[in-house]
Amino acid sequence: MLIHVVNPNSTAAMTARIAAAARRVAGAGVTVRADNPPDGPAAIEGPYDGALAVPGLLRCLAAAAEAGADAHVIACFDDTGLDAARALCRGPVVGIGEAAFHLASLVAERFSVVTTLSRSVPTIEANLMRYGLAARTGRVRASEVPVLDLEAPGSAARRRVSDEIARALAEDRVGAVVLGCAGMADFVDEMSAAHGVPIVDGVAAAVALAEALVRLRLATSKTGGWASPHERTACPIDAAP
Amino acid sequence: MLIHVVNPNSTAAMTARIAAAARRVAGAGVTVRADNPPDGPAAIEGPYDGALAVPGLLRCLAAAAEAGADAHVIACFDDTGLDAARALCRGPVVGIGEAAFHLASLVAERFSVVTTLSRSVPTIEANLMRYGLAARTGRVRASEVPVLDLEAPGSAARRRVSDEIARALAEDRVGAVVLGCAGMADFVDEMSAAHGVPIVDGVAAAVALAEALVRLRLATSKTGGWASPHERTACPIDAAP
Amino acid sequence: MLIHVVNPNSTAAMTARIAAAARRVAGAGVTVRADNPPDGPAAIEGPYDGALAVPGLLRCLAAAAEAGADAHVIACFDDTGLDAARALCRGPVVGIGEAAFHLASLVAERFSVVTTLSRSVPTIEANLMRYGLAARTGRVRASEVPVLDLEAPGSAARRRVSDEIARALAEDRVGAVVLGCAGMADFVDEMSAAHGVPIVDGVAAAVALAEALVRLRLATSKTGGWASPHERTACPIDAAP
Amino acid sequence: MLIHVVNPNSTAAMTARIAAAARRVAGAGVTVRADNPPDGPAAIEGPYDGALAVPGLLRCLAAAAEAGADAHVIACFDDTGLDAARALCRGPVVGIGEAAFHLASLVAERFSVVTTLSRSVPTIEANLMRYGLAARTGRVRASEVPVLDLEAPGSAARRRVSDEIARALAEDRVGAVVLGCAGMADFVDEMSAAHGVPIVDGVAAAVALAEALVRLRLATSKTGGWASPHERTACPIDAAP
Amino acid sequence: MLIHVVNPNSTAAMTARIAAAARRVAGAGVTVRADNPPDGPAAIEGPYDGALAVPGLLRCLAAAAEAGADAHVIACFDDTGLDAARALCRGPVVGIGEAAFHLASLVAERFSVVTTLSRSVPTIEANLMRYGLAARTGRVRASEVPVLDLEAPGSAARRRVSDEIARALAEDRVGAVVLGCAGMADFVDEMSAAHGVPIVDGVAAAVALAEALVRLRLATSKTGGWASPHERTACPIDAAP
Amino acid sequence: MLIHVVNPNSTAAMTARIAAAARRVAGAGVTVRADNPPDGPAAIEGPYDGALAVPGLLRCLAAAAEAGADAHVIACFDDTGLDAARALCRGPVVGIGEAAFHLASLVAERFSVVTTLSRSVPTIEANLMRYGLAARTGRVRASEVPVLDLEAPGSAARRRVSDEIARALAEDRVGAVVLGCAGMADFVDEMSAAHGVPIVDGVAAAVALAEALVRLRLATSKTGGWASPHERTACPIDAAP
Repeated sequence: MLIHVVNPNSTAAMTARIAAAARRVAGAGVTVRADNPPDGPAAIEGPYDGALAVPGLLRCLAAAAEAGADAHVIACFDDTGLDAARALCRGPVVGIGEAAFHLASLVAERFSVVTTLSRSVPTIEANLMRYGLAARTGRVRASEVPVLDLEAPGSAARRRVSDEIARALAEDRVGAVVLGCAGMADFVDEMSAAHGVPIVDGVAAAVALAEALVRLRLATSKTGGWASPHERTACPIDAAP
Repeated sequence: MLIHVVNPNSTAAMTARIAAAARRVAGAGVTVRADNPPDGPAAIEGPYDGALAVPGLLRCLAAAAEAGADAHVIACFDDTGLDAARALCRGPVVGIGEAAFHLASLVAERFSVVTTLSRSVPTIEANLMRYGLAARTGRVRASEVPVLDLEAPGSAARRRVSDEIARALAEDRVGAVVLGCAGMADFVDEMSAAHGVPIVDGVAAAVALAEALVRLRLATSKTGGWASPHERTACPIDAAP
Repeated sequence: MLIHVVNPNSTAAMTARIAAAARRVAGAGVTVRADNPPDGPAAIEGPYDGALAVPGLLRCLAAAAEAGADAHVIACFDDTGLDAARALCRGPVVGIGEAAFHLASLVAERFSVVTTLSRSVPTIEANLMRYGLAARTGRVRASEVPVLDLEAPGSAARRRVSDEIARALAEDRVGAVVLGCAGMADFVDEMSAAHGVPIVDGVAAAVALAEALVRLRLATSKTGGWASPHERTACPIDAAP
Repeated sequence: MLIHVVNPNSTAAMTARIAAAARRVAGAGVTVRADNPPDGPAAIEGPYDGALAVPGLLRCLAAAAEAGADAHVIACFDDTGLDAARALCRGPVVGIGEAAFHLASLVAERFSVVTTLSRSVPTIEANLMRYGLAARTGRVRASEVPVLDLEAPGSAARRRVSDEIARALAEDRVGAVVLGCAGMADFVDEMSAAHGVPIVDGVAAAVALAEALVRLRLATSKTGGWASPHERTACPIDAAP
Repeated sequence: MLIHVVNPNSTAAMTARIAAAARRVAGAGVTVRADNPPDGPAAIEGPYDGALAVPGLLRCLAAAAEAGADAHVIACFDDTGLDAARALCRGPVVGIGEAAFHLASLVAERFSVVTTLSRSVPTIEANLMRYGLAARTGRVRASEVPVLDLEAPGSAARRRVSDEIARALAEDRVGAVVLGCAGMADFVDEMSAAHGVPIVDGVAAAVALAEALVRLRLATSKTGGWASPHERTACPIDAAP
Repeated sequence: MLIHVVNPNSTAAMTARIAAAARRVAGAGVTVRADNPPDGPAAIEGPYDGALAVPGLLRCLAAAAEAGADAHVIACFDDTGLDAARALCRGPVVGIGEAAFHLASLVAERFSVVTTLSRSVPTIEANLMRYGLAARTGRVRASEVPVLDLEAPGSAARRRVSDEIARALAEDRVGAVVLGCAGMADFVDEMSAAHGVPIVDGVAAAVALAEALVRLRLATSKTGGWASPHERTACPIDAAP
């Protein structure tokens, strides 16, 4: 089984760390192939970055589908471009945000989210409402750590994320915390050990769910908004937007 | 006052009709300037088309803001790219979908929407939920008229839209109907006369609301998801995505 | 275009200030005529005052409609008597509460309300739920300034309202604040300058929306609860309740 | 214990029938005293009638409280003036609409409502949403029987109400039906026998709940919107609105 | 009229106190008979205890129905086994949790709940959501007093419950507080006097509501989930689960 | 990895079919062990059967945990006893109902459920509301096929389930259908082929999710209602309720 993990930002170092996290959880017989668009935003912080990242994301998805991917994971916690991706692809597509929310709701009555910047919070809140899981959420919290600082060795990123997790557990009446950025995938073991409650990383969650969907032969229903695009706009590989 | 109306699809004939509808409702002293991206999808039918249209839309917005627009109207009923646009622009930005929903809720306890294709329905439903106005909605209905057929002289488009409005009034317990596509702006008088209830066109609604916001000196709150983009991704005019 | 603004309380000095605020925002060619019932509560603070104010309010509306008003604004933030008014009048009727909520939701992801007394809070909260916009609201806050103190020169009213706005911005995760009383219409410029986010006054918002509805020829749907009253109860001018 | 039942319309024959229904269910030691305002709307059909009925209703409540009533029942299914009444009175006040909804939700997972005219439906729906019980409701249905026809001997009223109950049971997936008008209090036995599911009359429900509240010494919390009116507007008996 | 009150835990001393509270509120002509299962959990603290208590509870209900009970009260604030009980019994069944919520919502715009341990909070919250009354709730609070400590003379239980009520009134913007455990039935007068707002005890509320339902001849609708059990599982008296 | 699948009813033939379905989807290195309580209801049809099945279910769970199970699946679509199970067990516990809902929401914007009898519908609807996924649901439909008829060779069960799926797709505006009973696990391939949209079986879904949780080292948060039981009620193996 080939699972394609696409990091919609253009920071290759982050893609490498995401790929490693994905491979740690993938089952026997599962190949993970990860990529990112060559250009576009270096990090997705808010809806403006998100919108600009989507065309490159769709080109990666189309190429991977062509190359035989059985399923796709969108490794941005905003689930950027998820509806467009489901319209484009035949195989299942899983966003790391939604994946983390669904798994968190199986191990905790309520959960909070700790993400990077305040400007990402409304998108995540809107996603939770649309997915139906806002009712299971305590609060979406910003650690105010920029995405790319998560990459920087020696930054205070881990401590600030950990502090925000502690505040969530103290104030939000939740039983688990979701890490709200693909760049935090490395933190999950350390945070689990430190806080003693389930800490959910979306990259691992999405890979596991994508694998599950393939095994169950469940692919995206090509109905409603996820119907295949018209011929005239179907090929984002050649026709740059 | 200069109001910029951007049609995010690349069909110039549709832009011309939208501009005419906008001018019919604009107040004294208001100049309407309308444009569309030179390329991108010819019509926005579903989230895939929508995603590909956004970079071009943002370039139009940036150029118009540079040229002194006081407010912007996004003339696609899906309110495509609205969050990104509000992050980018200083002046207020109004989507024609949201505009129609807000005005409809001032003249009817509940309203239905009649749009083009089924593939657009989930996006509109998700918007209604996010805006908070799903509770005021009867049903979002597809007439199954493709967007570009609305442009075609002699098509059955008007009759099919009218038939769907009739079904909405018979079945949905609503007091008004919103026309769910910028391409239907011309239909509003005919449909109002035919059905005897308020029929709301989003283009007119959005222009009136944009003018109201400017007059009240209310601009987008640059907080949360609408904070101005970082320098690195701020200029979509030059840096093609 | 003639827009009738009715202050449902009997304090003429407040009516004069409301009229001035309305005229500041009215477009070219719009005449604003403001009145209030000669008797009834001097201020509307809670549902009991509101209920006693409605018959006088309806008499003002009937007289203004007879005199050719194109639209009506109810200048009490509780939107007192709005359903009865829409049943009575042919032209559109806009409450200042709903008007402020709708415009605020175009410029902020979420907004809070700062009103006068605690006893007004539940009515405003119930309205927000009914309009569907509770999901966009942070919190409805009382400044504990009585309505008529807003009229008193030298009172601490402005400072207390400003302090409550500051608390809303610090605690409620909102991007805008709505002024929750017609008597605060004068505060909007000062508060906008002081707090740096959109501050929305309902009187201006309602006049702008009423003008927009008239321009779009959108009048109240006379269906459901807004159907015209039966003959036997139709004329509140002569038949005092 | 003295329970005051006020019919807010001015039709004395209807008051008599309501009083009889109330007495049938009152416990040992409970006196029921029923009245109605001498003037005002002959029937309450929609929010306009409702608004005009409230001042007279409040005068009846004030007089009964003065005369020692332990609790009050508002015998209009719209729960007309309920917030104002709770602000005015010291003893508990129960609306027949809310009473019926609460008891119905103890005997059925979901229930529908059969009321008189379509123009009453939105008020009832708004009440259900505010009370929180909309989630337990199938549908609020109009039988299109005018209120005063319920009084007319030989009318088709009973048959039409019964037919609408049958439709509710066939289509709404509900286990009980609430009779949506005080004038239907007489129908409850006949409808229960005919349809084999719980049929709930609000008059009986409200009297039983008022008695329960008095016995438990639970009176209205004089907080928020139900705080006692200011002196200046406190006495509706003398100061006609 | 015979009202059966079943305490689903096996602590007979608690049953005696519950019976006394029930009798204090029962009307003339009402006999209260109280029992508890001879074995099973000594207290119900969380869903695990709740699940183990249900078979014994059902045996008590079946025996009381056989013995002619007109109605049943389940005297555990979690409303343990309520759906199963309604399927089993012909007469109405009222849980003390739901009873308290319904009566509280007649005397306060919003109420909070003060229960025993944190582990009971999610069950109560889930019930409030299902009943539809979550919208009327401030917060469900744990006093962290174990159930059986409520029985212990000289314990700090009353003070801790009272302190938590004070916090609810200070922080939750509510007008009443519900006592969230059958073992708190004795506290209601003291707490009412101390806090000056309605304090609602579920045991008294449920007995009053059960009596009301019998008087109105309203029994459980035997539809949907409350349909009578199949023969094969119908008799829990003999067939121990 | 050892996954324990417990069928909470006592029909061993059904357990065998469930085990086979579970094994078809389990990954390499996963052992599935299935059991059922030796007594208790032969099928779970409605909340009464469900309540009686829980003690036996808990004994199975305790024994399997003792025997080293890494995760547990409750193979009743009502997710019977799920909260109690999560309190009892250290490893993750997944209900087949919730599992199916979560996976369905990854492949369809909205889905319907086709279950056995009407008496099971309210429990499923209440679960969907509690999980937060009611917003994603079209309708929960009963095929009126009793659970044990699903086992009977030559019954009309498959045809009736298929007919109800067809009605769901025609009427509910959904893109997928969930099979609402563990006894339908065998139908999934046939129904998928027949209807051309994703058909989701909860047994397979739950096994895949349980495996995912173990691989991600996510176990139940022992907070709130899922805190471990007190010593006094902790061992359901010996202390039969």
